[in-house]
Amino acid sequence: MALLVQKYGGTSVGTIDRIKAVAEKIAGYRDRGNDMVIVVSAMSGETNRLTALAKEIDPAIRGRELDVLLTTGEQVTIALLTTALHQLGYDAVSYTGGQVKILTDNSHNKARILSIDSINIKRDLSAGNIVVVAGFQGVDEKGNITTLGRGGSDTTGVALAAALKADECQIFTDVDGVYTTDPRVVAEARRLDKITFEEMLEMASLGSKVLQIRAVEFAGKYDVPLRVLSSFEDGEGTLITSDINEDDSVEQAVISGIAFNRDEAQLTINGVPDTPGVAFQILGPISEANIEVDMILQNIGADGTTDFTFTVHRNDYDVALSVLKEMAEKLGAREASGNSKINKLSIVGVGMRSHAGIASRMFEILAQEGINILMISTSEIKISVVVEEKYLELGVRALHDGFDLAEDKDE
Amino acid sequence: MALLVQKYGGTSVGTIDRIKAVAEKIAGYRDRGNDMVIVVSAMSGETNRLTALAKEIDPAIRGRELDVLLTTGEQVTIALLTTALHQLGYDAVSYTGGQVKILTDNSHNKARILSIDSINIKRDLSAGNIVVVAGFQGVDEKGNITTLGRGGSDTTGVALAAALKADECQIFTDVDGVYTTDPRVVAEARRLDKITFEEMLEMASLGSKVLQIRAVEFAGKYDVPLRVLSSFEDGEGTLITSDINEDDSVEQAVISGIAFNRDEAQLTINGVPDTPGVAFQILGPISEANIEVDMILQNIGADGTTDFTFTVHRNDYDVALSVLKEMAEKLGAREASGNSKINKLSIVGVGMRSHAGIASRMFEILAQEGINILMISTSEIKISVVVEEKYLELGVRALHDGFDLAEDKDE
Repeated sequence: MALLVQKYGGTSVGTIDRIKAVAEKIAGYRDRGNDMVIVVSAMSGETNRLTALAKEIDPAIRGRELDVLLTTGEQVTIALLTTALHQLGYDAVSYTGGQVKILTDNSHNKARILSIDSINIKRDLSAGNIVVVAGFQGVDEKGNITTLGRGGSDTTGVALAAALKADECQIFTDVDGVYTTDPRVVAEARRLDKITFEEMLEMASLGSKVLQIRAVEFAGKYDVPLRVLSSFEDGEGTLITSDINEDDSVEQAVISGIAFNRDEAQLTINGVPDTPGVAFQILGPISEANIEVDMILQNIGADGTTDFTFTVHRNDYDVALSVLKEMAEKLGAREASGNSKINKLSIVGVGMRSHAGIASRMFEILAQEGINILMISTSEIKISVVVEEKYLELGVRALHDGFDLAEDKDE
Repeated sequence: MALLVQKYGGTSVGTIDRIKAVAEKIAGYRDRGNDMVIVVSAMSGETNRLTALAKEIDPAIRGRELDVLLTTGEQVTIALLTTALHQLGYDAVSYTGGQVKILTDNSHNKARILSIDSINIKRDLSAGNIVVVAGFQGVDEKGNITTLGRGGSDTTGVALAAALKADECQIFTDVDGVYTTDPRVVAEARRLDKITFEEMLEMASLGSKVLQIRAVEFAGKYDVPLRVLSSFEDGEGTLITSDINEDDSVEQAVISGIAFNRDEAQLTINGVPDTPGVAFQILGPISEANIEVDMILQNIGADGTTDFTFTVHRNDYDVALSVLKEMAEKLGAREASGNSKINKLSIVGVGMRSHAGIASRMFEILAQEGINILMISTSEIKISVVVEEKYLELGVRALHDGFDLAEDKDE
């Protein structure tokens, strides 16, 4: 008998029939003797419907009243799911974020959880109830309704699991786990049985949209075992945990997956007179334009000048390039240029910490396919390269194959 | 400068354009220096939409989770209306029932208000905010969400006005006030400038659906001046108050209006042996069948027997008649019969307390039209008669004319 926190997203509860199916699934877990706490999102489409209503009044709506509006979405779902559980003959009780209470700071639309009062939920669990909690929402210390921002229901699930010391936090989605890479690009992509929090963070930040980064960070920080499963199919999903290597040999986890990101663009300023503080002089105005920078490279160029390259989200490319061109003139640089037709490609794995030669093997595989590398950046458990957009799929497939990811070594 | 509590019903806030129009109306009152507290219902159709969703899961849904579900309707409206006020440049803040907090008992779906904490609202008013409160909802002492039952937003408005000692509670509806009778029956029906709580209660209980009875009772109990106005047209509406005669001569208020009710049916049991407790023996089984009885008459019949007549809602007629037939056999009564083609017709007015001859004038008017009276019942401020259905309109028009209600004596 375990205490499970399960989170079902908007698609999983998108219709009355799906809510009934979710209730059946929960009932199955309950029948096997588990204590159950369920976190739900708004029915799919509902948040967009409410936002559209509000935008008819204020196209730029944000702040307190948007949270009052949007939190009704999850409140509808908890009432319906709890009713569906009652219909199956189970004791169940619903909670809004405020009723729990999930205390947040007062940053409306993007609040952070400060604490969770678990007393009422524990009492209801002891009394044999299935507890159904509205995700994505909380209250500040004055009782104002807050939201954690879009997708925040994952974070609610993990935070509740941490507060209740649950055995596992299970995130039910429309995919059946975390894959070695995107199966739409590599047909042989394989579902991972396990992955570490760090690897999952790198995969997530690189565009594997299975889980919210914040939820994974939270789970890692509080060491909450996190499992990604399908709402629609049976299966074990992928367990995200810190103790991945306890029952596996270390060898198997050199590379866990290939991640990629199609949303980046590259900007370069060449021939900048190399004086102290030049990096700040260049990136300061970019940051002031509210543009986030991802990779940053600086090389020594010819004649005591320096070349400076960085990547931004493709949506910010035009603004960033015009800022950079102004900057080039001011700094007396030779030229500012950019390329919006690039992609980022990364290999991720905790195993590479202890394995030399992973980087060179990666570059070798890409070279064999004639793929030119435009930028390189490395971290403890990740190596990223920027390549021309046209090489993205070829590169992903070559790396997936070259690092033998298709073979299931866990069995 | 006054403190006004205004309540806008579902039709008044039924679309985004109407919400914007309500915001403009509120802004106008605010501009004239009033402190404003606004109570709103769910957008029209929303409560039905939510109920339909729930009934797909549990056709007989009631209790705690139904309240969790339905209260989202008003929560959406408060967020949208508050946003609309912001867009017009006004400071405004929304409150759910729980945030106020409106403390109720724990009778889900039909809770009663126990107390209202007015501290937060007063603070927001002092700071210059328009306060927008979700009607129809509250919380019990454990923090469970409750609802006051359908139409309970009127009650929320009156209760808030009482708690805040507001100068007036203004109920905005789709009619522009209380009329001397239904204008669809009597074209000359006249809007009343003023009416007493007691008269309004009699009018409301007789089918003038302008206001919820509960709200009028509440307003009378706490002496909250209540005004009914149109959301869509300008005008003074009708003021419902206890001090109606202060600036009018007593003469003018003999009869305030003609009310009627098409939903009744009459049942009679004749020749019941007249023993003590016979009324209870007859009405006990009717009450056990959950049928509410309106008028009750008992006459001495021939030969030491008694005749007993009462009226019920027409929906309950068939059940009541079969119960009564069983009863007739058991009691050795001569016969049980009924008539579902009757209507009730009443004249209402506080003035009749001090005026003899009102009843005989009423009977005279009806007799002149050849209308046979089947039952008579009187109270301090009301005389009701039951007539055959076919005479309803004729009777209403004759009384409206006979008591000179079309002439506006207030001016």
